[in-house]
Amino acid sequence: MKFPHPIPVRTLALHINARQVIGDDTLEATGINEIHKVEPGDIAFSDVKKYFEKTLKSAATIILLNEAAECPSGKAILIVDNPFEAYDQLIREHRPFEPVRVPVSQQAQIHPTAILEPGVVVAANTSIGAYSHIQANTYIGEYSCIGDHVSIGPNSIIGSDAFYFKKSPDGAFQKWRSGGRVIIEDHVDIGAGCTINKGVSGDTVIGAGSKLDCQIHIGHGAVIGKNCLFAAQVGIGGKTIIEDGVVLYGQVGVIQAVHIGKNAVVLAGSGVSKSLEGGKTYFGSPAEEFREKYKELAALRQLPAILRKLKI
Amino acid sequence: MKFPHPIPVRTLALHINARQVIGDDTLEATGINEIHKVEPGDIAFSDVKKYFEKTLKSAATIILLNEAAECPSGKAILIVDNPFEAYDQLIREHRPFEPVRVPVSQQAQIHPTAILEPGVVVAANTSIGAYSHIQANTYIGEYSCIGDHVSIGPNSIIGSDAFYFKKSPDGAFQKWRSGGRVIIEDHVDIGAGCTINKGVSGDTVIGAGSKLDCQIHIGHGAVIGKNCLFAAQVGIGGKTIIEDGVVLYGQVGVIQAVHIGKNAVVLAGSGVSKSLEGGKTYFGSPAEEFREKYKELAALRQLPAILRKLKI
Amino acid sequence: MKFPHPIPVRTLALHINARQVIGDDTLEATGINEIHKVEPGDIAFSDVKKYFEKTLKSAATIILLNEAAECPSGKAILIVDNPFEAYDQLIREHRPFEPVRVPVSQQAQIHPTAILEPGVVVAANTSIGAYSHIQANTYIGEYSCIGDHVSIGPNSIIGSDAFYFKKSPDGAFQKWRSGGRVIIEDHVDIGAGCTINKGVSGDTVIGAGSKLDCQIHIGHGAVIGKNCLFAAQVGIGGKTIIEDGVVLYGQVGVIQAVHIGKNAVVLAGSGVSKSLEGGKTYFGSPAEEFREKYKELAALRQLPAILRKLKI
Repeated sequence: MKFPHPIPVRTLALHINARQVIGDDTLEATGINEIHKVEPGDIAFSDVKKYFEKTLKSAATIILLNEAAECPSGKAILIVDNPFEAYDQLIREHRPFEPVRVPVSQQAQIHPTAILEPGVVVAANTSIGAYSHIQANTYIGEYSCIGDHVSIGPNSIIGSDAFYFKKSPDGAFQKWRSGGRVIIEDHVDIGAGCTINKGVSGDTVIGAGSKLDCQIHIGHGAVIGKNCLFAAQVGIGGKTIIEDGVVLYGQVGVIQAVHIGKNAVVLAGSGVSKSLEGGKTYFGSPAEEFREKYKELAALRQLPAILRKLKI
Repeated sequence: MKFPHPIPVRTLALHINARQVIGDDTLEATGINEIHKVEPGDIAFSDVKKYFEKTLKSAATIILLNEAAECPSGKAILIVDNPFEAYDQLIREHRPFEPVRVPVSQQAQIHPTAILEPGVVVAANTSIGAYSHIQANTYIGEYSCIGDHVSIGPNSIIGSDAFYFKKSPDGAFQKWRSGGRVIIEDHVDIGAGCTINKGVSGDTVIGAGSKLDCQIHIGHGAVIGKNCLFAAQVGIGGKTIIEDGVVLYGQVGVIQAVHIGKNAVVLAGSGVSKSLEGGKTYFGSPAEEFREKYKELAALRQLPAILRKLKI
Repeated sequence: MKFPHPIPVRTLALHINARQVIGDDTLEATGINEIHKVEPGDIAFSDVKKYFEKTLKSAATIILLNEAAECPSGKAILIVDNPFEAYDQLIREHRPFEPVRVPVSQQAQIHPTAILEPGVVVAANTSIGAYSHIQANTYIGEYSCIGDHVSIGPNSIIGSDAFYFKKSPDGAFQKWRSGGRVIIEDHVDIGAGCTINKGVSGDTVIGAGSKLDCQIHIGHGAVIGKNCLFAAQVGIGGKTIIEDGVVLYGQVGVIQAVHIGKNAVVLAGSGVSKSLEGGKTYFGSPAEEFREKYKELAALRQLPAILRKLKI
């Protein structure tokens, strides 16, 4: 996430009430991001000493810490009491949370040819393209971009909050603000009762021409390619990448942060727990190439009789 | 799907802009259907040469093709540029798609004793029977028939579109229009957040007295018998037939186009990948008779120790 | 469920049209409950002779039967034609079912700092605490108690009916009325498209600080501890108890009436079919300790080659 204008480190230090600036205080922050996503110019944070080094060595230029540390050259450290809260404050200020108060926000851009059915709620800072059809009681959350010729079934949710929390030492969870968006490209069909979470620091994307059946869940920041086909009740974990032409049958689950290659097929009910090469068919939980899995299942069916014969 | 009046082949040829009529041009079309469902008098289509013969040998009387072929006696072939588009045009014209624009369509027939809660949206050409109770924010799609004494929980969707596409050679998908209905018979209970798809060329049916928990998905054209009990998050594939008295525990998935016999029981989390005989209990993914599956799982638990002992 | 005032047995007998009173007719009924939950003073029922003894030996003080039986001392038996209907009548009268007719019931108590988005429907006898945020098109059912700082995503349902039926000899099901509530404690986050059923005779509880992702189903009377983390599409059966700090990954299913100990972790796609000790990590369907399960899966992968080698 980039700021509209660069923020000088000294301004930033005052703004978030930093106790100390270490390193180059003439730098400017141009954006803010999670440690996995930071680019030069970005602000990152850490509040656990053992991760300080990793954060300082990342691409981030300005680092928020709760204790002094040695600053690499060309960077600046800002010491604050609670780096997570300072980070959250900056995200909130640059993408302020505005609870939806009207069924269709005046800040939403809706193409005149788009059809919105009764009960649809459209939040601020969204766009809905030409000839798109949003069916009854569906919710289009803030910062969603819906392309042209998109169809979204009844009671679906585009842009629900990321499921992403920071655990405190006492076991309680603090919510990590969803700064990203949902982008639905052209000619996508989404069924009824689906939920597509916003990204935390990137965008959740459904590629052009992909078709999703009912009750599908897409986690925060997942990127789905073009012309994919997902049957009902599929669930995709956060930050997972699925390439073009992938077919997932009913109730398939894919964990977070894996990669499924082009034109892969995963059979019904499977659980994908690691990245999968494209062009192959998979089955099982954990999912393996389906021919291997079928051989295992055939062997397993023989096993009770074999053990009886071997008197084991 | 039957037409209100028969359509002479010559009228049809003009209407869909056919280049040529082969065979008996004095026939009449009485309906239109998918190849799996066609009856005498029906129109069917094929645009892939290797399926021409199968289509010509089907019960269909009028066949739309994109190339000339030999016509069986008592039939007619109409040659058009794009048989799928001609087919789609005929379906659309005989069951026109009308986007819902009012929360309760004036064309819906709602019994005076039925209760509709706030946020319910009822599309055109639907009927809701006596003493039925449609809870908040539920959507009753076009051409749905809801019987008497039916209860439907909040945020459910009756009559979402079939998940049924035609793949183009370039990998893109064209949506197959849902010409069928959803029929919910008397005394059915449906929980919250369920999705029941319309049939493509037949009806999706939930039999009298059946009870569905929350977040259940029923695919296009599935037929569920009487007094069935489905626990939460069950998913049923399109065109599957489930007989009376079947019990499916939580998160069971059933693939498309299979048949489950009377009073069968499938235990929680199982995946049904083939037809199952009635009167038995099943478990696993793929589901097997539960006693066999339990023996396999018991043998599997011994296997690591056995392999160690055998020094394999 | 306790009555507001005790009901004398003779009044009760007249009210439910009892044919006969056996035992102490000077007693008073102070409440009514299922056999699993009854306390002294409660009314219970049985209509199957082989369960009469169990019901008579329970803590219940007043027992509704359809045939005469020997009455233990300090109790009273009321003979009625249909004990289930009499039971249902009493539940209905003391917690009358009121179909929601207005988007926000005048009987709901909503804290002035709570935010309700468009399309939210709030039934009677509910309370929503300070700074809570109920997102678009969500339904808050009757008798729900929502704490402070709670966030509920769009299109979720709090307080759907329990999935709990009584089977008649002819195979038909009669619905068991949901007399319980849903209680959402402080600082709980619930995602989009979740369904949380009311208890039948107790309350469904989500403990303080717990975080639920999207499309999660919680069955009737389940009790979830504090600071639990459930990923998307998890399903929990009725009356299951989950202690504090439990983590359930995506698509995990837990059957009804089991117990999961503190800080247990269940990996994605697993099916929990029995109670699990706390502090351990589990995988598989049925779920086992994950190290054991991984050894089994590794052994299974070797099995086809071993069988070939052994020429079995």
